[in-house]
Amino acid sequence: MPKNALYAQSGGVTAVINASAWGVIEAVRAHPAHFGTCYAARDGILGVLNEEIFDLDQEDPLTLAALRHTPGGAFGSCRFDLGDPERDPRQYERLVEVFRAHDIGFFFYNGGGGSMDTALKVARISDLMGYPITAVGVPKTIDNDLDATDTSPGFGSAAKFIATVVREASLDVESMHTSSTKVFILEVMGRHAGWLAAAASLAQEYDGQPPMLILFAEVPFDEADFLNNLQLVIERYGYCVVVVSEGLKHADGSLFAVAQSHDVYAYTQLGGAAPRLAEMIKRGTGYKLHWSVVDYIQRAARHLVSRADVQQAYAVGKAAVEGVVAGYHSFMPVILRQSSVPYRWTISRVPLERVANIERGMPPEFIAPDGYGITQACRDYLRPLIEGEDYPPFEHGLPCYSRIRGMLLPKRCPEFTVNDD
Amino acid sequence: MPKNALYAQSGGVTAVINASAWGVIEAVRAHPAHFGTCYAARDGILGVLNEEIFDLDQEDPLTLAALRHTPGGAFGSCRFDLGDPERDPRQYERLVEVFRAHDIGFFFYNGGGGSMDTALKVARISDLMGYPITAVGVPKTIDNDLDATDTSPGFGSAAKFIATVVREASLDVESMHTSSTKVFILEVMGRHAGWLAAAASLAQEYDGQPPMLILFAEVPFDEADFLNNLQLVIERYGYCVVVVSEGLKHADGSLFAVAQSHDVYAYTQLGGAAPRLAEMIKRGTGYKLHWSVVDYIQRAARHLVSRADVQQAYAVGKAAVEGVVAGYHSFMPVILRQSSVPYRWTISRVPLERVANIERGMPPEFIAPDGYGITQACRDYLRPLIEGEDYPPFEHGLPCYSRIRGMLLPKRCPEFTVNDD
Repeated sequence: MPKNALYAQSGGVTAVINASAWGVIEAVRAHPAHFGTCYAARDGILGVLNEEIFDLDQEDPLTLAALRHTPGGAFGSCRFDLGDPERDPRQYERLVEVFRAHDIGFFFYNGGGGSMDTALKVARISDLMGYPITAVGVPKTIDNDLDATDTSPGFGSAAKFIATVVREASLDVESMHTSSTKVFILEVMGRHAGWLAAAASLAQEYDGQPPMLILFAEVPFDEADFLNNLQLVIERYGYCVVVVSEGLKHADGSLFAVAQSHDVYAYTQLGGAAPRLAEMIKRGTGYKLHWSVVDYIQRAARHLVSRADVQQAYAVGKAAVEGVVAGYHSFMPVILRQSSVPYRWTISRVPLERVANIERGMPPEFIAPDGYGITQACRDYLRPLIEGEDYPPFEHGLPCYSRIRGMLLPKRCPEFTVNDD
Repeated sequence: MPKNALYAQSGGVTAVINASAWGVIEAVRAHPAHFGTCYAARDGILGVLNEEIFDLDQEDPLTLAALRHTPGGAFGSCRFDLGDPERDPRQYERLVEVFRAHDIGFFFYNGGGGSMDTALKVARISDLMGYPITAVGVPKTIDNDLDATDTSPGFGSAAKFIATVVREASLDVESMHTSSTKVFILEVMGRHAGWLAAAASLAQEYDGQPPMLILFAEVPFDEADFLNNLQLVIERYGYCVVVVSEGLKHADGSLFAVAQSHDVYAYTQLGGAAPRLAEMIKRGTGYKLHWSVVDYIQRAARHLVSRADVQQAYAVGKAAVEGVVAGYHSFMPVILRQSSVPYRWTISRVPLERVANIERGMPPEFIAPDGYGITQACRDYLRPLIEGEDYPPFEHGLPCYSRIRGMLLPKRCPEFTVNDD
């Protein structure tokens, strides 16, 4: 009897992570000789520790197929890192207990660099604890900071959303600038990498249209230089769009804006760069301005996604399963670019060690010399990633998204308390 | 020889105001016996005072037709009110001077309640100054606060965008809530009226899904009661979406958040309710949260509009012109609802006096007894307004929007300095 497969979602979710889920589920079911049943853990690795495992056979097949166009994490996600197996073997013993109780031999973990570290730790259970488990990563992150892949599923759609709303809001501020608003600030996500801020530049039809200054997480913020540049742009064009990464830093490396010092699990929550920048601009120039923070909206906006991104999200899920069928383990599927125009790509794989806990920032040659824009090389890289549309079905004026019934497998193990520290 | 027609845009622009422009332009051109050339003023009434008048005959017909799917104000808008004609006749003498110089006999002013007052003042020039001018209003406002009309073009699309992104972001926070974010706050526009906040409720598929608390501009904010309700929702559902009107007020009528005390022309600029609320919730409950401010994005998002709204925007532009052909003047076309399911409507007209400087808030029977949601009557009213999609064309992954060449008519009048106070 083949062992069962378990899929789980981790970290910040995206508009297309469920397309990866569907890719995994469909591929597992297409290989009955290799896999038993396909399950999904609730809330990522937490669901394994808590023995909360969804029985996908109790879901309507149409509900599962509709995951392809449903944003968010259909099975729940988590921000949770496994401890060191040497220092805290209890978590790993628990994982084995739950895997064994439900005859799980395959673990597909869908997340970013931190989640790939979790997948790697699960993969090492085979050697460390003698329980045979094949663990594979499935890439996902709107931040585009996973290494070794052309892009990460989730990024292209967030980039397309940002470029679109920047183009739209630019037309708005252009209309208003004579007697009212002259500066529009948009804050986008990106703790360490400015990829999403860079994507805003795609809104420009040609150089200087709309006039825009980008503040990257990678470029130390210099207030005087920025205000000077802003003044020059407004003198020339009458208005300016400013796009700021939430992770903008001062020259000393400290964050420009921190919403809350620290929350649970030692992640720093960012946000608030836009209103802070607005105050600074108002004080420094007196211009009337408006600001926007898109936050979750940019990564949940399934109503406007990149078709390439949806296809890649599905493809990496499928490739994770097919790699296992081909005999590979402890890997993450990656996207390899074959050409930019037209965009052609293929799927390969890298060992989990190659991507776990690694963050890829923008290469310096992608940032314009003045630090406020992108180069042609960056534009050539980004453009294919936002191509094509893939609208969800609408009913009564709103997108129809899928919602699982969420029937859990009966518990077979004793209670377990997840240590939250 | 028939007199020329002048069209202009005023106040905050919308995703569909240019569809009204196209409705006016097409209808004027369809009645050559009644109208001479169709012009457009740059930046609303300011363009008349400054004698900055676009020659639309120099625009590519395809550019003008593409206004139907282009957001923002293609001709520029303004926040500018004409003074009292008794106290400041200089502005009115100037208007007549420019009208006469370009043989303008018809003025179509596209805006909200304040702009209808401007249209009315222009209409009165005929009596006051003896220059024959027919002035007509064309309704527009995302705030839905124009009186005497079923809805205002611009609102339905903003409402659809808000309901959609709330549905999407709700799925995101639902995915994250177990180990991370439990509250998502969205700030929407609405200085005095909570219509846009109410629209968020359409994201609910059924009662309590997603769990949501709405803070209306019309309902005095009570911190203790709100935090108590939030706690109850989170205990029951695990997470909560909070939608807040920028115009939220305390019991004493003071604004919950004011970004800047006052800007030019005595408009108070709002914004910042979301981060302020976030701080309050964090302090009061300790929950991890995320917040978003959509600002201009909600009114510029042409990529996701209501088809009914686009049709109405075009229809009121056309009806303004056809009303003039039928012999009416000093009116604004209004939308009359004939049925909600299916949505059937027709166009009528009301005198400008009936709508100038009047703001329509939510009727009390549209707000739920606890003050944090909407009633079924409100839902029945709102639902038809967001129905249908009308996507713009896309190229290279981004919407293609129209941009006018913007050739100005040669000036024939002396320079004039607009008094900005």
